[in-house]
This record gives sequence, C-alpha cells and structure tokens, in this order.
Amino acid sequence: MGTKFVYMFSEGDASMKNLLGGKGANLAEMTKMGMPIPQGFTVNTEACTDYYEKGKKIDAVIEAQIDESMKQLEELSGKLFGDESTPLLVSVRSGARASMPGMMDTVLNLGLTDVSVEGFAKATGNPRFAYDSYRRFIQMFSDVVKDIPKSNFERVLDSIKEAKNIEFDTDMTADDLKEVVERFKAIYKEQMNEDFPQDPKLQLMEAITAVFRSWDNPRAVIYRRMSDIPASWGTAVNVQQMVFGNMGDDSGTGVAFTRNPATGEKLIYGEYLINAQGEDVVAGIRTPKPISTLEEDMPVVYKEFMTIATDLENHYKDMQDMEFTIEKGTLYFLQTRNGKRTAAAALQIAVDLVEEKMLTPEEAILKVEPKQLDQLLHPAFDEDALEAGEVIATGLAASPGAASGKVYFTAEDAKNANEAGERVILVRLETSPEDIEGMAAAEGILTVRGGMTSHAAVVARGMGTCCVSGCGELTVDEDKKIFSVGGKTYKEGDQISLDGSTGKIYGEAIKTVEPEISGNFATFMAWADAVRTLKVRTNADTPQDARNAVEFGAEGIGLCRTEHMFFEEDRIAEVRKMILASNEEERRVALDKLLPMQRGDFEGIYEAMEERPVTVRLLDPPLHEFLPHDADSIAELAKEMGLSAEALQAKVDMLHEFNPMMGHRGCRLAVTYPEIAEMQARAIIEAAIAVKASKGYDIVPEIMIPLVGEIKELKYVKDIVVETADSIIAEKGSDLKYMVGTMIEIPRAALTADEIAKEAEFFSFGTNDLTQMTFGFSRDDAGNFLDDYYKKKIFESDPFARLDQTGVGQLVEMACEKGKMTRPDIKLGICGEHGGDPSSIDFCYRIGLDYVSCSPFRVPIARLAAAHAVLNNK
Amino acid sequence: MGTKFVYMFSEGDASMKNLLGGKGANLAEMTKMGMPIPQGFTVNTEACTDYYEKGKKIDAVIEAQIDESMKQLEELSGKLFGDESTPLLVSVRSGARASMPGMMDTVLNLGLTDVSVEGFAKATGNPRFAYDSYRRFIQMFSDVVKDIPKSNFERVLDSIKEAKNIEFDTDMTADDLKEVVERFKAIYKEQMNEDFPQDPKLQLMEAITAVFRSWDNPRAVIYRRMSDIPASWGTAVNVQQMVFGNMGDDSGTGVAFTRNPATGEKLIYGEYLINAQGEDVVAGIRTPKPISTLEEDMPVVYKEFMTIATDLENHYKDMQDMEFTIEKGTLYFLQTRNGKRTAAAALQIAVDLVEEKMLTPEEAILKVEPKQLDQLLHPAFDEDALEAGEVIATGLAASPGAASGKVYFTAEDAKNANEAGERVILVRLETSPEDIEGMAAAEGILTVRGGMTSHAAVVARGMGTCCVSGCGELTVDEDKKIFSVGGKTYKEGDQISLDGSTGKIYGEAIKTVEPEISGNFATFMAWADAVRTLKVRTNADTPQDARNAVEFGAEGIGLCRTEHMFFEEDRIAEVRKMILASNEEERRVALDKLLPMQRGDFEGIYEAMEERPVTVRLLDPPLHEFLPHDADSIAELAKEMGLSAEALQAKVDMLHEFNPMMGHRGCRLAVTYPEIAEMQARAIIEAAIAVKASKGYDIVPEIMIPLVGEIKELKYVKDIVVETADSIIAEKGSDLKYMVGTMIEIPRAALTADEIAKEAEFFSFGTNDLTQMTFGFSRDDAGNFLDDYYKKKIFESDPFARLDQTGVGQLVEMACEKGKMTRPDIKLGICGEHGGDPSSIDFCYRIGLDYVSCSPFRVPIARLAAAHAVLNNK
Repeated sequence: MGTKFVYMFSEGDASMKNLLGGKGANLAEMTKMGMPIPQGFTVNTEACTDYYEKGKKIDAVIEAQIDESMKQLEELSGKLFGDESTPLLVSVRSGARASMPGMMDTVLNLGLTDVSVEGFAKATGNPRFAYDSYRRFIQMFSDVVKDIPKSNFERVLDSIKEAKNIEFDTDMTADDLKEVVERFKAIYKEQMNEDFPQDPKLQLMEAITAVFRSWDNPRAVIYRRMSDIPASWGTAVNVQQMVFGNMGDDSGTGVAFTRNPATGEKLIYGEYLINAQGEDVVAGIRTPKPISTLEEDMPVVYKEFMTIATDLENHYKDMQDMEFTIEKGTLYFLQTRNGKRTAAAALQIAVDLVEEKMLTPEEAILKVEPKQLDQLLHPAFDEDALEAGEVIATGLAASPGAASGKVYFTAEDAKNANEAGERVILVRLETSPEDIEGMAAAEGILTVRGGMTSHAAVVARGMGTCCVSGCGELTVDEDKKIFSVGGKTYKEGDQISLDGSTGKIYGEAIKTVEPEISGNFATFMAWADAVRTLKVRTNADTPQDARNAVEFGAEGIGLCRTEHMFFEEDRIAEVRKMILASNEEERRVALDKLLPMQRGDFEGIYEAMEERPVTVRLLDPPLHEFLPHDADSIAELAKEMGLSAEALQAKVDMLHEFNPMMGHRGCRLAVTYPEIAEMQARAIIEAAIAVKASKGYDIVPEIMIPLVGEIKELKYVKDIVVETADSIIAEKGSDLKYMVGTMIEIPRAALTADEIAKEAEFFSFGTNDLTQMTFGFSRDDAGNFLDDYYKKKIFESDPFARLDQTGVGQLVEMACEKGKMTRPDIKLGICGEHGGDPSSIDFCYRIGLDYVSCSPFRVPIARLAAAHAVLNNK
Repeated sequence: MGTKFVYMFSEGDASMKNLLGGKGANLAEMTKMGMPIPQGFTVNTEACTDYYEKGKKIDAVIEAQIDESMKQLEELSGKLFGDESTPLLVSVRSGARASMPGMMDTVLNLGLTDVSVEGFAKATGNPRFAYDSYRRFIQMFSDVVKDIPKSNFERVLDSIKEAKNIEFDTDMTADDLKEVVERFKAIYKEQMNEDFPQDPKLQLMEAITAVFRSWDNPRAVIYRRMSDIPASWGTAVNVQQMVFGNMGDDSGTGVAFTRNPATGEKLIYGEYLINAQGEDVVAGIRTPKPISTLEEDMPVVYKEFMTIATDLENHYKDMQDMEFTIEKGTLYFLQTRNGKRTAAAALQIAVDLVEEKMLTPEEAILKVEPKQLDQLLHPAFDEDALEAGEVIATGLAASPGAASGKVYFTAEDAKNANEAGERVILVRLETSPEDIEGMAAAEGILTVRGGMTSHAAVVARGMGTCCVSGCGELTVDEDKKIFSVGGKTYKEGDQISLDGSTGKIYGEAIKTVEPEISGNFATFMAWADAVRTLKVRTNADTPQDARNAVEFGAEGIGLCRTEHMFFEEDRIAEVRKMILASNEEERRVALDKLLPMQRGDFEGIYEAMEERPVTVRLLDPPLHEFLPHDADSIAELAKEMGLSAEALQAKVDMLHEFNPMMGHRGCRLAVTYPEIAEMQARAIIEAAIAVKASKGYDIVPEIMIPLVGEIKELKYVKDIVVETADSIIAEKGSDLKYMVGTMIEIPRAALTADEIAKEAEFFSFGTNDLTQMTFGFSRDDAGNFLDDYYKKKIFESDPFARLDQTGVGQLVEMACEKGKMTRPDIKLGICGEHGGDPSSIDFCYRIGLDYVSCSPFRVPIARLAAAHAVLNNK
C-alpha cells in the first residue's frame, strides 16, 4: 500500500492538523468525541503538494483513494452519489493548517445533476427545495470553481423576479426555479464553451482541483507572506455530506463563539437564521437572531448545543468558533476552531482560562499571537465609521495604528499646521532625516516610495506613529502641494485617513478610538517575562522614546542612533559647519560647539534609563545626508554660512555618492575624521560620569562602532575611543566602567568575527544592513522588483521584515560561534528591524543571543515572542 | 640564550633572505664564498617587527646583541669604534626581503666624531679626506636620520665656495672643510636643539632606528601596496665596515650588471668613477666611465672583477646587479642582487639562461614577474623624451600603456576628432556606457572620479587603451570644455600625455614607442603553458576583443557582457523603446528588432573563438543606465521617440535608484521581464546553431545568469532559458548542447551554493561585486576613503585589485566546497578583475578553480601567473 492521501473523518484526530488541515482535524476529533457531525473525508495536504509537484495534476493514486472514500461515505449515509432516487450531496471546503482567507471557500450541494435533482425532489418530497438547491449549486460552482462572474446569474434572477413581479427569491415557485436552472446552465455553457458537468464525480474532482489551485491565488499568496505561512504547507480539502438548514421552520443555520470575541467576556455569543443555508446569513437579506433566542425557538436543540459548545471549549481549552446547522430539528456541527479575537479579548480569555484552571500560565502565553499586541498600543478606527469609508489606495502597512487628518506636503507645513492645532497627515514622496520634526508633528505619515524599512517606516515605528509607505499608486506633486490617485486629486488641507495596520488609505476623515490597556496586560506580560530568557531592549534616540520604551518593558537601549540628534534645528547648523570645514582645526571648532549638546542628549537618555544598559552607536550616515541637495536650499544655506552657492554646490557634489548605502559612512567616517569619534566618545563618557554623580546610577555605557568589516578598522576607531574615555575618567578621578563593541552588519565582519571579537566586547547584529549586503539589494530599491518575486513565488516573505535564516541567519550564527571562540563571554544582541519580529526572535533565541532590541512600540511583542520561543523550542 | 636578532656576515647565507633581508643574505653568501666583502653584521627583520610591537622602541636585548656584534667587528677589523687613533667607520643600510624603494637608503662614514676624525686623519695621513668624510657624514646623517632639509647644508657649501671663489667641492682645503664641519654642526644644533651626537654608539642606534622607522613611511607604504608586500615582513639593517673609493686615483666606485638590463644581451654592463664615493656617482657632476675602460685603468682589478661577476651569476643563476668599491687598488664588493630589467630583457635572459643550461625552463619561468609582461603589450614613452616631461597631476594607474594626444571632453567630440585624424585623449568626470564609442576612438582616457574597477578602468583595460582614473586633483568643466590643475587651465585641443602604468599626467605631448614582441615571448610562454593547470579565458564583448584575446593565448571567453552591445549607435534606440514599453506586447516588439542584431553579435564571437568555450552573461545593468539623465538629452530623446519630455522624465524618475549597485539588475530584470531573457537565450542558441552549421565548429554555449542570490530565482530564469533553447533546438532538428550556470557574486549565493549547484552547471565568481557586497562598499565610492585606509595601515592592498583572501576568499572557497558537494563535476571559474591578478590567481589555483578569465591584455600575465602558482605551491 502506498501513501495514504485521503482520510475518513473517523480515521483522524486533532493531532493530525499538519496533514488534515485545521478544519479536517477538528471534524475528525469531533467525530471521535461522538458529536453530531455530518460525515465525510479529507483529501490531505500532501495531496496538494503532490498536485503542484506533478505540474498541477491530481495523481491517479489520489483519485482512486477519493473514489474509495466516496464509496465509504455512500455506505455510511445510505445514499448514492448522483443517484436518481436518494442522491448523496456533499459540500467541498478548503482547510489549511492555519485558517487562511483568500482561498476558495465552499461549494455546497455538489452531486446535483439533471438526473439526481429529480431523485432529490422525490427523497425530500419538495421539488421547489430541490431545484432551489440545484440553482444554488450551479451558481456557486460557476463562481468558485470556474470564475464566472456572479453578476451573470444575479441578472437572471432579477429579470425573472421582475417578470413575475415578485420581491424575494423565496417567493419563486418550483417552476420558476426550473427555469432559473435552465438559464443558469445556458450561462455556464456560454461562458465555458461546454455543458454544465452532469457527472457528479467530475464535479467533485473539479471542485477539489479548484481548492488546490486557490492555494496559489494572489490573495492567498499575499496572506501567506503577511502571516509567515510557507507555500510548502499546502491545503487539505474536506468533502462532507450535506445537511440542510433550509428545510422549513424546524431547520436553521448559525455561527457562535463560546466567549465574546471582541471583549473576551465569558458568555456564548453568536447568531442564527431559521430556514436558511449558510450563504443566506452572508447575503444579509434577513437579520439573524442572537443565539440566546434559540432557547425559546428550539429548547431541546438549544440545550444540546450549549452542552456541546461547553464540551468543545473544555476539550480544546480555548474559545471556540463554531458553525452549526439544524435539519428538521436535528443539530449538526459543521466546524469548530479556536476563534479569532481582538487583542483585548485574547488577553481577557487567556487570563480567565488560567483563573478557571483550564490552562497554566505557560499554556495561556501560547494562546496569544505576539503581533496581535500591536492593537493594544495604537489607535484604531471606529469599526462602524470604517464600514462607510472608501479605500482610495493601498500601500505597505509600515507602522501600525490609525490616523485621520489634513494633508500637508512638507515637514514645515505639517509642523506649522500642528502648532495651529490641526491633526496632520504628512504626505511625502519619501522622507529624509530633515523631515523629522514634521514627522513628529503628524498623526500619520504617507510616502510614495520606500519599503518596510525605509526611513519613514523605521522612524514612524520608533515614534509609534501610524505610517503607510511605498504607495506607488499615488502621484505626488510636492511643489504644487497635491496628490492624485484613481483620477481624483487631493490638495493641502484635504482630509484623509490612514490605516497603518493594513496599508489602506481612505479619502476622508474617519473616527479613531484610542487604545485602552487593561490590568490583564500586566498580568499576562508578567507570565511571559517569567518564561523568557532573552532580554528585550529598545532602539531609542531620545529621552522621550526611552521613557516610552521603559513603560513598555524595555530592559535597556540596544541602539541609540546619535545622528538623529544632529538633525534638530539648533544643531544642524553646527553639524553643517563641521561637514563643510576645510581642515581639522575648523572641524574641531564646530565639534566643540556640538559637544555640550550631544552630552546633554546622553544625560537625558541615561536619566530616563536609570541603571539599564545603553548602547550608543557612533555617527553612521554619510555626511551628504546632512546637506541640502536642491539648488534653492543650497543657495539659502550658502547665504546663511557666508559661502558662495558655487562653493557649497561643489562640496555637495564632492560628497555625492553613487551608492550611498555602500559609501563613506559608519566607522569609515571615524577613520577619516577621528575627531568626530573623539567628540562623541567624550560626550558619552562625560554624560555618564555626570549622571552617575547626580543620580547615583551605576551606568556602564556601551559604545558601538558601526559598519566594521575588518579588525584593524575597529582597532583604529576603538583606540581613539579608549584613549579619549580613559583620559577623561582619569582626569575626573571617576571609577566609570564602559564597554566598546561593534555592529555586525557587513558580511565580512561575520566571516571574520573571530578576529573582530579580539577587540569587540559585544556584537550587535545590524540585520537591516546585513540583509542588504547578503542579498545584494538595497531596501530602498527592492520595492521595484520584490513584488514580482512574491508573485513568482521566489520569495515568500520580505527579508527585511522576517530574517532570512538560510542566508543572513547563516552569517549571524557563524559570527556568534566565531565570536564566542575568541571571547566566550561576548555579549550578543540584535538591533535590526528583525529584533521585533516573532519568527526572527525565535531564531535569535535558538542561536543563543543575549538580547533583542526593537522600536519602543514593539517591545511587548518581543517580550511575548521571546516567551513563545522558549515554550516552542522545549 | 634568547632569540638571535643580530648576525655577523659570516653567520648567514643566501637561504636566510626572510630573516636577513635580500642585501644581508647576499653579503653573508658572498662572505661564505670567500669574496672580498667589507665585513659587518645584520640586525634582522624580526628586530624590526619587535621594534614596532614594543611601541617603536629597540629592545635592550637587541641593543646588547648589536654591541656584541660591534665588538666582533672591531676585532675583525683591528680598529675601534670612535677611536682617536684608528677609528672603525661603518655604513648603515636598510635591506628588506624584497628590494624596496622609498625606504631609508644609506648613511656612510658613521663613527666619525670630533675626536675620531683626528684619529682618522692620522690613520689615513690625509686630514682633508678625513674632514671631507666627516662633513659628508654630518650631512647624510642629518638628512637621512633627522630629516633636516639638505638645502641648509648646500647653502653653506655654496657660500664658502663663493667666498673662496672656488668652483668644485674638491677644491676645498682641509681648513675649508673644518669650517664646513663646524657650520654643519651649528645647523644641526639649530634644527635639533641639541649637539650633533659625539657618541658613535648613539649615532649607530639612531641610524638603525631610522631604518626601522622608514619601513613605515608613506612612500614605502604605497610601494608595498603596489607590490603586495605585507607590513609584517619588516626590514633588516646592515652595518658594514667602510671602504673608500675616494682615496686617490687608485680608488674608485661603481655599479655593474652581468647582462644588459634593457635588452638582456649577454655582456657586462656598468660604469664607475675613479676617486669617488657612491654619492658622487649620483650627484652627476662627473661623467662615469663605462666598465670596459676599467681594463685599461686597472687591469688586475678588472680581471678580478670579471671573475667574481661571472662566479656570482653562475652561483645565483641570474643576471646580477653589483656595487663595488676599489680602495687603494683593492677590490671590494658591497652588494649583489638579481638585477631589475625590462620585460624584453627578462625574456631574453630567461631564454638565454635555459640555452646556456644554467636553468631548466621551470626555473626560468619563475625569473619573470607576470605583471611585467604588461610592458610588452602596450606603447611606452620614449625614455629620453619622458625625462623632460612635466608631471601636472597623478591619478590611478588604471590601464597600462602610454598615450599622447589632444584633449576632448565628450565622447562625440573625441570620436569626431579621431575621425578627422587626430590622436585624442578623452577627459571625463567619469565615463558611462554611453561614452563607449568615444573611448574606443581615444588613445588614452582620463577621469576625475572612479577607482581601479570603475567603468572607465574596466573598459579601457578590455580595449588595451591607456587609462588614468580617479584623478581628484583635476577640476573638469565639461560644459566649458576645460580642466584645471595646479593653477593651470587646459582647453579642448591642448596636448597632454598619460602614463597608464604609473598614473602620471604630463602637460604636453611626449613621444611614445610601440611595443615589439620577440620570438622569446612565444618560447617562454610555451614553457609556462606546459606547466600551468588553470585554463585562462578572457572577458570579451566583441569579435575584435575576442580575436585579440585569442592572439594573446586565451582559451575561451569567461565573460561576454551582452549589455555592451546594447550601447552601439544602431541599437540604443531599440533598447530604449524596449525599456520605455508600457506593456509586455510593446516590449516584445522592440525585443524582436533587437534579436537579429544580438544574434549577429554572437555569431561574430563564435566565429572568432572557433571551438573555444564562450560564456555569455544575460543582461546585467539596471535599465536606467540606458537612458539619458539630464533635461536636454531627455527632451531630445522624447522628441525622437514621439513622447512628451514630461512623460519620459517621469519614466526616468521611476527608474531612479538610490543604490543602483544594489538595485533592479542582473537576473532581477529577467524575473520582472522574462521576455528579455527569452530573446537573449534565443539569440545565443540560434547563433550557435548557425555557426555550427556554417563553420562546423562544435560549439557548446555557456549561458550565465547573473546576480543570483537564491536558488528559486535561478530556477525561474533558467526555466525560461531552457524552454526557449530546447524548443529552438527541437524545431531546427539540431543536436546542439549548451550549459546554464550562474555568477556567484552575491554573498548569499556563496552561502547557499549547495542549493544553487542543483540548478547551475557552472559557477563563475564575479569577484568585483562579491568584493563590494562582502566589504559593504561600492567601488565607485570607496575612492573617497580608501586612501585614509592605506595611510592608517588598515588596508595594505586594494581589495578590488587583489582578492581579499580572508573575507571574500572565504566565501569563494566555501562556495566551491558546497558546489562540489552537490555537483562534483561543477565547472568553476572566476571572471572578476581579480582573474588577471597574479596573487589572486595563485589563490584560485590553490582552491581548485578550473579557469580564470581576464581582459585580453592580461591574458599573458594570467598564463604566466598560473604557471607560477603551480611551481610556487609544489
């Protein structure tokens, strides 16, 4: 006997989720528990994989097993597939390992043909019902399996109802419906150039194939990428005997949750319709009734339902989302699964289940998805207000939250409008560090260019500001202060709304609601903290960011970017003087003016962080980033600085780089201008000594030298730092300790980490740059082609969002091993964007990092993900 | 007893070159052979390394060994250091493992003090000679050890000669020289703030320290980088008893070669001066006599000299470069070494030595440095004409050869001037592919920006055209058609000259001489070919390049860049239409027009290469490289194409990239536009079938997919290529075989080479890009900071010229191992610039590559280097 691809429900159980998909495994489990389940079978996920491997064909072996299972189902039901007297009708549904929107959903009533519909009419004694079922089947099969637009069929229904002068589908007679069937079949033939299939076996195989095919449709591919679901998982297909909720007033259908999915309240929650099939609930013509009224309508059924619902929750130890149908007074469950819930509900349920002794805290931790916590920390749109909103474009969901406000096109305009009391959305082609104040003033940021790790995205996440980036559909004219999309133009002051969690942009103001953090959050996070071993730090550049992060549970700063401080209004002039200095002496004069400001920055950060460790990175970006680039701004700056515009333009030209990402930046700046590193080391050390003295904190600054690729380069800059630091410490008679380490963000640093560790007391993996260099593409440019990579299934996830464990991870792991060989107690952390991504955090845990560092608003996510990592790798 | 740092000449031999340096080892060897060598001792290279390790201090242990050796030398000579009656005088000379210009050369007469000069006067009976020796010593010590400018001393001599009304130094009396000594000492005191040292031991230690120090002076560092000499080697110091060629007409000094260093002719070659010290020869006041006249002047000495010279050549089995001194009729040899020679002489000598049975061909191969062969293939400046030339600036020696011509600032002007019969030097800020025709028309190319692997450098080397790149001293105004340097302005049509082998730029026309290739070349290269195991291919994009390369011995094409063909005048319009197409259909129309042209290109190349393998790389550069960027050119092109300038500008903007090196290029283009890869595969295969049919060559095209970082990406593009190729082959009923492989130029490709090898039949290491990605710096931008890296000894060589074996090499080796694990017979080659660099070729041999590929003019170098690799790794 070969591989088993098809399982009867009675052959499986809940543990077989990977093979049978979530729905199939749960149907098997419920069958095993003796619950009232319409029987059937599951074509498993390996059959789906096989389908793709065989060039999108269902193998004969699998087809034979389907036939065999169909026979068993016929025996179980006492009905025959396609029979002219007691025909077996089935539903066909997809069911992947994880619930996955975007795939083919359901075909009901499969098995009806011109012949079996007559049998069905006889068996039910209800020709109207039989023909209604047949026309529904043709409609669904055509839409779902054959992609024939629904409107074709709607038009037929409308024209018949009009001709007959009736209002509702339900008012049509059996004869009306026979005519509908004929006309539906005609549409099918016209569209497909062949007759509607009259062989139920053929119907079944086509439906199964359609499910497999839908695993790879664009929406499913996008969803998989967003949810880190590999293409290799495949989907299963469930074939289940039909039961009918539309056989009269003793029939009905509904959905229910064992607890409230919005709040987590322990109270059964759901709704149902009498005399209806599932699709009628969706159609929204009749208003469903709340589940509580079922007690009056059908007391026996209600009692049975409540017992089963409670059993299911107790069995799965989680809130259940159930579908059920009542056929002539008999209750059937069609599905159960752990229910989707809001973040607030997730915490409430987790805490309640522990209190109810149903779960241990460790089990409860795994019930909440780390990424979901985002919801708790950002404003969201009011659900009702959102319903009415019109989506005008969709970009990348770069920083979560929801924002409404008036459009402004420059940082300065945004700042001014905000100061005048307006809520502002900043719209830019792309942002640059010069825009920082405008970004801080905005409720939300929208950019045309740039990916998930573009400047706008990174800064916005750090601030906790909603951001949609890389929305290429928009045409922005920054000079005219307008943007256009879909033929409509929006000008300065117009209202729009952004959803940073979905990337959607709305062309109007939509009401937002602020998040509320309940006591459950603290309870739950304490459980997670007790489990995790990875420390969680934050990337923060200002005392305000640092304080936010501490409130979210950050245990230190893993990355403090000193250059962000250079852009503030009172400093940029001195920074520019420093850059434009024609010799070391002039440069030192400007640096001396920057020193007290920079020292003040660090004092503020040390005070905010108290005794928590702080890693400060020396100046990183290329110097041209601090200078203007267009002729007008250059002329203006030249005037301010008493230079000729030509001379300034010449300097800007000299600093121009073909590939700034791979240019004169990072420690390369310190090699050329050691005095910059000297000033920064002085500021870091003097601030630490001052705060240590004033507050009594035991501060051990960690000085991080960026972009190192060669040990001698690190040694050169480290020598400057150490010489400066030691002389200050000696001079002030302080006993301050400090550490010097490096970022590992250049492949060569990882490859020679054994050498580098001779000088570095810590490594912090800068996985943004490391990903760029390892893949050889820049995050700012990759947007131009990554879409094609997703579409063509070359990449399944964005390597800037989810760490590429095969390539980049190989370098990270290599560097850890080599680093530890040289220096067994070397401190290892990650400060790239991946530090806030759960799957990447799992990897960091497995390779033995000491900490992850992420933007303040991701700290709770990282804490929970670090706990998950421990539990999932047990 | 501890480490021995100091060796008497009698304690060493020629095999101890690494420890004693070249000069010290040869002095020891000659001592051992019983030749007349003034005795002395060598402070070895380990003492130099120790000096740097101890923070630039000579350790007490070493100083003690020097004292002990000095004592032995006193005993040997029967004289005493600093003695008032028979003082021992010594010379102090540097002597590294390899001869190295730029380091401290020589201090003579060391040991003279106010006291010992009197003893010396008595011992020689010649006070004038004694004081002349003393003033020479003070002068040399001040200059060489203390960096006091020579002019200070020259002025004193001049003023005394003027006052006394005498013309030559030699006319000064003993009293005059005493006054000179006093005034020299006064200058020393004034400059150094201390008296001229009167302790000979102190003089000696200062001189030895100065030699060690000079190992690290900027000129030495630059020379080491150019010659691949690691800083860790260090230099030795030779301390040798003085002999005097200036003690009368029975004394003299000279230099000689055992064969002619310019032609290789077997005839002793040299010159000498009677009654002179070495520096007088250099001073050029008197004209030295040819060595042959020594037979008349001093027949006994001449005979002895000839015997020793012949013995030395026979002993070292190579042409010798010797220094000698005759002191009162006694001949002394002061040094011998293998003589520097021109490339032509090197070949002549190698071939002669084999004919004379002195060497086997294998030994002869190692006598010629591969890089030297360059001289044979490019024009050079006429030596005499060059003497008079004025260097106006120096850039990077990007492509060897010499060129003179009139300056033009645009490719078009250059082309027109060349067509009008002028010799042209193209001067550009930087070149781009659009300049290709102007570059081809030029004798030489000069750019302000860009390094050794910039576009200008790479293309020029491919063409064999002289190029100086990255000359930042120049200010070029392309609009005004002028450039300025050192206060002078050169306009269109002015004459300049470039030396692509030194990077020097001359402000005038200088006569050049064409190279001549003798029969020795073929003889010698045949020996090298018999030894080597690595195949040597070439990087060639045109039939002309291919034919050149075959003439130089290329055994195939390792890299044919298809995009270079796209820039030709008749194609660029179609290429642009292809790029500006708004959908696949339009793109295919343009591609259809390009197909026959591209097919024609390949036919030409196949015909030129006959049956040799040809690797064709699919389109690599980002598409914006094919479009104009300034507003005027955009407007012009828009007009040509019937577009609005705005629409074209929008497209150019859309294609703009922040970091083009890491952008939408390589196989990423084929993922987005599979139809481009399809057209190229079709052209490659159809051309192969056509040439196979017409010429009967058994062609097996190797189709190379560039910039792969992920197996699925390679598979996607390979599938297109294979599908296209197989259908053409089937359609034409051909039995053509072809291979599909990839470039390994992205770190991730190397890291996942085991996966990649599942689809790739060959790997070609693109070490230019791999170096960029591994170090994280772009070759176009690195020029801005690499100078600081050399100055600060962080890098010792240019990683784009010499493969970084530690980092980049680690990835290359890893990829070879992983590739072979998956596919044991995988073909491995290198096509980066390193393929023509001898030290990198040695690495390629050691890790087991099958071939190297380099620009046509480097093919002979690579062939010889590949033979060296075999012999040096035996």
